[in-house]
Amino acid sequence: MDVPEHARPTVHQAVRFSDGFTLESGVVLPELEVAYRTYGQLNSSSSNAVLVCHALTGDQYVAEPHPMTGKPGWWERVVGPGLPIDTERYFVICANVLGGCMGSTGPRSAKADGGVWGTDFPTITIRDMVRAQRRLIEHLGIARLFAVIGGSMGGMQALEWAASFPELVFAAIPVATASFHSAQNIAFNEVGRQAIFADPDWEGGSYWRSGKVPSRGLAVARMAAHITYLSEQALTRKFGRRVRSPVQDNPSAISLFGDIFEVESYLRHQGSAFVNRFDANSYLSITRAMDLFDISADHDGDLSAAFRGTTTRFCLVSFDSDWLFPTAQSRIVARALNRAGANVSFVEIKSDKGHDAFLLDEPDFHRTLLGFLSGCAEHAGLA
Amino acid sequence: MDVPEHARPTVHQAVRFSDGFTLESGVVLPELEVAYRTYGQLNSSSSNAVLVCHALTGDQYVAEPHPMTGKPGWWERVVGPGLPIDTERYFVICANVLGGCMGSTGPRSAKADGGVWGTDFPTITIRDMVRAQRRLIEHLGIARLFAVIGGSMGGMQALEWAASFPELVFAAIPVATASFHSAQNIAFNEVGRQAIFADPDWEGGSYWRSGKVPSRGLAVARMAAHITYLSEQALTRKFGRRVRSPVQDNPSAISLFGDIFEVESYLRHQGSAFVNRFDANSYLSITRAMDLFDISADHDGDLSAAFRGTTTRFCLVSFDSDWLFPTAQSRIVARALNRAGANVSFVEIKSDKGHDAFLLDEPDFHRTLLGFLSGCAEHAGLA
Repeated sequence: MDVPEHARPTVHQAVRFSDGFTLESGVVLPELEVAYRTYGQLNSSSSNAVLVCHALTGDQYVAEPHPMTGKPGWWERVVGPGLPIDTERYFVICANVLGGCMGSTGPRSAKADGGVWGTDFPTITIRDMVRAQRRLIEHLGIARLFAVIGGSMGGMQALEWAASFPELVFAAIPVATASFHSAQNIAFNEVGRQAIFADPDWEGGSYWRSGKVPSRGLAVARMAAHITYLSEQALTRKFGRRVRSPVQDNPSAISLFGDIFEVESYLRHQGSAFVNRFDANSYLSITRAMDLFDISADHDGDLSAAFRGTTTRFCLVSFDSDWLFPTAQSRIVARALNRAGANVSFVEIKSDKGHDAFLLDEPDFHRTLLGFLSGCAEHAGLA
Repeated sequence: MDVPEHARPTVHQAVRFSDGFTLESGVVLPELEVAYRTYGQLNSSSSNAVLVCHALTGDQYVAEPHPMTGKPGWWERVVGPGLPIDTERYFVICANVLGGCMGSTGPRSAKADGGVWGTDFPTITIRDMVRAQRRLIEHLGIARLFAVIGGSMGGMQALEWAASFPELVFAAIPVATASFHSAQNIAFNEVGRQAIFADPDWEGGSYWRSGKVPSRGLAVARMAAHITYLSEQALTRKFGRRVRSPVQDNPSAISLFGDIFEVESYLRHQGSAFVNRFDANSYLSITRAMDLFDISADHDGDLSAAFRGTTTRFCLVSFDSDWLFPTAQSRIVARALNRAGANVSFVEIKSDKGHDAFLLDEPDFHRTLLGFLSGCAEHAGLA
């Protein structure tokens, strides 16, 4: 076993690159910090590394309690000993994305002059996030990833990894994602941004100076987004029209302001819990990166050209009740990969849980992951 | 011809009832004002009246330019001479709903003590709106409506009319609607309300004191709602990923704040145009009425019981790309009406325009209306 010191799990890991990081826009970040977590052991040939990419509001705490909320890691059902991404078999890495607020360089980071980036933080792209992860991978002594996997924006990163660095990716598993952000998705992100802009505590993006937090605007953004993560069926099953107090018995007591329905309390809770752990300017920065995502744009609209000649093995997964990243979007990717002659399997999982299904207890999804990874491990010669 | 003076079209019509109006909650409004517009002529037997019910942000200006915006009436494609709701044949009435802000009693109205209702305005229901319309109808000397029609929240009113006053409704046409507001619909309304609450210019609901308008919060509410009125296909067709300025040429010029994509400019415009014509407290009041809507609730959950023995002829219309009030919701109503032994036809219109289709150029929909109304007119013995 030859595990480098920095790859051993610690409470909080980060690496700083001080040689400058040029963004896709041409802007140079003088310094790049990448915060990450690892699970399991890198094998002697460094061939068992699985990079997990997180979604918009996720972070590197995949398989352990979140240090701020104390809640379980966001993919504890998937990553761990004996689980589909088996930490007894694979060396699992997850990095906080560029633009994030859990230790990687983002709007909350210090600028060279000692101030905070805030809204001066340059526009970033999904490719920039992937390129920052690549720096981390190199730093960890990994020449090639066995697999890259992620759901939602994490799936965008998995696709971008395969498109930008095909020779570095043995297998890619983009889950509940798309090769471009749709008009509807941009529209929902824009509602969230406008809600943040509308909060006077955002202070034109400089709230970090006064120590205030634009908590009302950020909560509204989260609430609107949260609805898109659930299916209509899931909301009906979980809440339906259940009321918190018996309205029919005392209709004159109904207030315009209180939460009457359980679904309202749930949304309010989602909003207020979120503002305690997430930075508003990061939310702006990352949603913008998602909106700009369109892999085919660099290939005159021909998505297959982005994957021509690839040897990466792909497993695309969608969920039939996901209306944010519907199956039709994964089908577009599958067709392009087929046209590119890629090795691709595509599974639509039956689930009524909507987009969030990729985070939830979905045995069919987990069996799909296990099967695909095991097959790839065999082909890759992993013991 | 025996058209009462007050039923002749004027620039702005309203009637005031000063004998008290008891709401479903038991609260009594000392005074009820109903603002309305009429088109066409009431026949000598007062048997050709068609009540058009408007949606959440609609008003009584159905078939003529809006007095504030100058834009065409919201149903000029449907209501007018030679159109499906033919004003040469029918006497068409549309009233601003109770709780509205275009002249009917609502949060912006004066209280008895001279102040403004504001957030003291009591909780209202769809049934209250219908009962206010009934007062208007009686005032206009109409004993029985030939037809009640409306889309979205207007369709809720059409259903409620048929359920509450079956003997007063010869035909009912609930379009793109439901017999109850779903968890997802409540959730979207709640996002809008929270956006308004979050705006400090809302001032706890007392913005009318200072003359301020919670324009940022109300705009965000409108933007979120507007997405739900369109289908994903419609957004893609209208905007796709088109950018306002060529981003790829100069990516470093991308700002976090500007609108890059056309869909963003469109949404921002929708938001800012809305705040000029709509009252925030009305928005709160009316969305709450929608959320509380559940016809079956008074019948132990049995929707068919609400329509047992009805002689009203129903025509239900849904649009296949409407995800806010999907066809499944109309199907629930159709089944209940069938169980109740009602005379019901149910048409799902093919359209990729989403919920808003009921307001747009949809020839199949308009032919359906024309055919149903003509058949009913024959049965009703209308010349």
